[in-house]
Amino acid sequence: MIEANNPNLRSWIDVPADSDFPIQNLPFGIFKPSGGSPRVGVAIGEHVLDLKTLHVLGYLENLPFSQADFDNSTLNDLMRHGKKGSRELRNRISKLLRSDVPYLRDKEHHVQQVLHKQSEVELLMPVKVGDYTDFYSSRDHATNIGKMLRDPNNALMPNWLHLPVAYHGRASSIVVSGTPTIRPCGQTRPNDDEPPVFGPSKLLDFELEMAFITFEGKPLGERISTSEADDYIFGMVIFNDWSARDIQKWEYVPLGPFLAKNFNSVISPWVVTLDALEPFRCTNEKQSPEVLPYLQFSGDKGLDINLEVLIQPNGGNESRVCLSNYKFMYWNMNQQLAHHTVNGCNIHAGDMMASGTISGPTKDSFGSMMELSWRGQTPVVLNDGSERKFLHDGDTVVMRGWSEKDGVRVGFGEVRSKIEPARV
Amino acid sequence: MIEANNPNLRSWIDVPADSDFPIQNLPFGIFKPSGGSPRVGVAIGEHVLDLKTLHVLGYLENLPFSQADFDNSTLNDLMRHGKKGSRELRNRISKLLRSDVPYLRDKEHHVQQVLHKQSEVELLMPVKVGDYTDFYSSRDHATNIGKMLRDPNNALMPNWLHLPVAYHGRASSIVVSGTPTIRPCGQTRPNDDEPPVFGPSKLLDFELEMAFITFEGKPLGERISTSEADDYIFGMVIFNDWSARDIQKWEYVPLGPFLAKNFNSVISPWVVTLDALEPFRCTNEKQSPEVLPYLQFSGDKGLDINLEVLIQPNGGNESRVCLSNYKFMYWNMNQQLAHHTVNGCNIHAGDMMASGTISGPTKDSFGSMMELSWRGQTPVVLNDGSERKFLHDGDTVVMRGWSEKDGVRVGFGEVRSKIEPARV
Repeated sequence: MIEANNPNLRSWIDVPADSDFPIQNLPFGIFKPSGGSPRVGVAIGEHVLDLKTLHVLGYLENLPFSQADFDNSTLNDLMRHGKKGSRELRNRISKLLRSDVPYLRDKEHHVQQVLHKQSEVELLMPVKVGDYTDFYSSRDHATNIGKMLRDPNNALMPNWLHLPVAYHGRASSIVVSGTPTIRPCGQTRPNDDEPPVFGPSKLLDFELEMAFITFEGKPLGERISTSEADDYIFGMVIFNDWSARDIQKWEYVPLGPFLAKNFNSVISPWVVTLDALEPFRCTNEKQSPEVLPYLQFSGDKGLDINLEVLIQPNGGNESRVCLSNYKFMYWNMNQQLAHHTVNGCNIHAGDMMASGTISGPTKDSFGSMMELSWRGQTPVVLNDGSERKFLHDGDTVVMRGWSEKDGVRVGFGEVRSKIEPARV
Repeated sequence: MIEANNPNLRSWIDVPADSDFPIQNLPFGIFKPSGGSPRVGVAIGEHVLDLKTLHVLGYLENLPFSQADFDNSTLNDLMRHGKKGSRELRNRISKLLRSDVPYLRDKEHHVQQVLHKQSEVELLMPVKVGDYTDFYSSRDHATNIGKMLRDPNNALMPNWLHLPVAYHGRASSIVVSGTPTIRPCGQTRPNDDEPPVFGPSKLLDFELEMAFITFEGKPLGERISTSEADDYIFGMVIFNDWSARDIQKWEYVPLGPFLAKNFNSVISPWVVTLDALEPFRCTNEKQSPEVLPYLQFSGDKGLDINLEVLIQPNGGNESRVCLSNYKFMYWNMNQQLAHHTVNGCNIHAGDMMASGTISGPTKDSFGSMMELSWRGQTPVVLNDGSERKFLHDGDTVVMRGWSEKDGVRVGFGEVRSKIEPARV
């Protein structure tokens, strides 16, 4: 076991029982303290630990990091030190925060300099995303979409069970939680017998996804195997892959989704390390037919992460519309990364690879309005009695994720974004 | 007319008559002199002008650039000064190189410091590509592919004449001319009645494309109109979008090409500015049906750029297999950029947007082996008598592009890449 994951550890910083950020988590992010510059931080309870200042004060000595790695507006430079470096860093921070280690705990004047309340800082985009890839790895989601849009009796495409289908997405429009989502305009063809029209999307949807962020990979031409993949994954975030279904329907044949997706994607601000998630490993659905050797793997490569989606109408309260779990994935991250690089494609520190919509087998676990309302046929009823086929202007979509085991809760915080009217 | 484009200008530097780089071109690139660090350069005849040193010597004063913009391994910082800045810079360089301007010409000790022979320097990747988008804007190409893979009587998809179809590609694997191309391995399904197999691609192909590189755009949520688009385009390069047809066939439904494309894409090293291409504007095919208002444009937005593809077998001579032209595009760059941003998608300095394969109406102008050999049915015969359905290990693919008018030739140099055997 990684020592920092020990469920018996306690911090000298007060951590509420329902917090996503106990000492066993220690996710990395970028924050801006009031009046200060962006820098690297680690969440602990309701606080953020300032790694820039911690380094200045000498608490991060004998680690392979420089001041510039922490005095930085992205995590990319930090990630360039790879799995070994980031693991040593998390272990050091764990030690500094343990209730039985007095080194930082008893230096009151230092503690005041390195601890900020999360509520008093601005959380920024944690990484500069180089390339962004979106997989399509939930069998229930792919089946639901296939049933609705293609053939109900042959919902999965012939390739789906043989390889983790994926497509490239837009990195520039990935933004951090709190950023509003402007309803996109675009070309649609509501009536097949008439010419296409231009205007605001009428079928705006969320997609519940998670994304992993990579370390620097190998040179162009080399592969990362399923057994090596863990060493190239820094951590994970929750990912809302906003989608305009009417734009998507008209544009996506034959080269895939484009403007239906690239107007906005929103992520949670804290990158939970793969190390912190190790205690929550689980098995996924057994794959049949057997996959080709390059996609085979050993060990439990699933993760038991509870995921929920809530809709908050303008001025109203949140209604949970979906409770899903990352364990429902058919293809795991190791397989995704092995597939992505099997042709020699290279990856860099800060690349982001999303899961695709994470739907479970039951209707209350479907990860998009498209599936929840079954293409608008069965509206979703919110707590205030209002109905949604797709999303309305003023709606805020919130996604949360957390794992729990042995009394330890490791969470992701939330992704939140409010829909603003289209700019016609 | 932009003064630097005046066909009567001559440089005090000797420029061979058939050079792609007369004083009317002045393309930007990144080069590494022997024993020196990477820096910004401008091609002139058989030489490179060293902008880093030129700035140190004071020849670039009263322009909005700093030393760091030129002492740089990419053009991205330079591009952040936008159209106005890069135009002023090109105009200044044009003045410094004019035969009738003695300012630099007569300073022999300075000339020696700022001029390098192209043959003695290393040409590097000119930009750090942020996001890469590939359009599909040649009607002949889309029609050819549709005829072969789908319905010969309905070759174009219903959306094709209404919007410039595009998809996101991989930025990390875009490399500069001279980089070899390793034959990719991947999953294919040669026989529909049997399970898929893994191995080297057997149907390796080039795609003749051009790409434009953008300046910094507008914030997320705003659009760039067709009339504004020119101000957001820095310049163009030739783009070989290597493709593995057998991998593509099996993977691309329903989300588009992925591993069939992202193993390697090769560009020419010199970015020819849109300013330098203005004299070669032409009309494209008239669009019918009429496009939606956001895609309408005024003026000539096509470009008359001759394009050729040559195959050089291992140890042999080049055979030209394709002579095409950028003027065959159905959708122009202004429409592509307006479409890309109409939903609010943001662009950054250094984003790259490729045209899609540029095929003309005649068989000798098809821009891929897929079309030239009509899916392998009619092999292409090279000068040495050997035949190609698709490409062989050891083949070098060369692409060149140039415009000519009023005795002025503005060219792109070449894209060259040799195929190395698969790493099984």
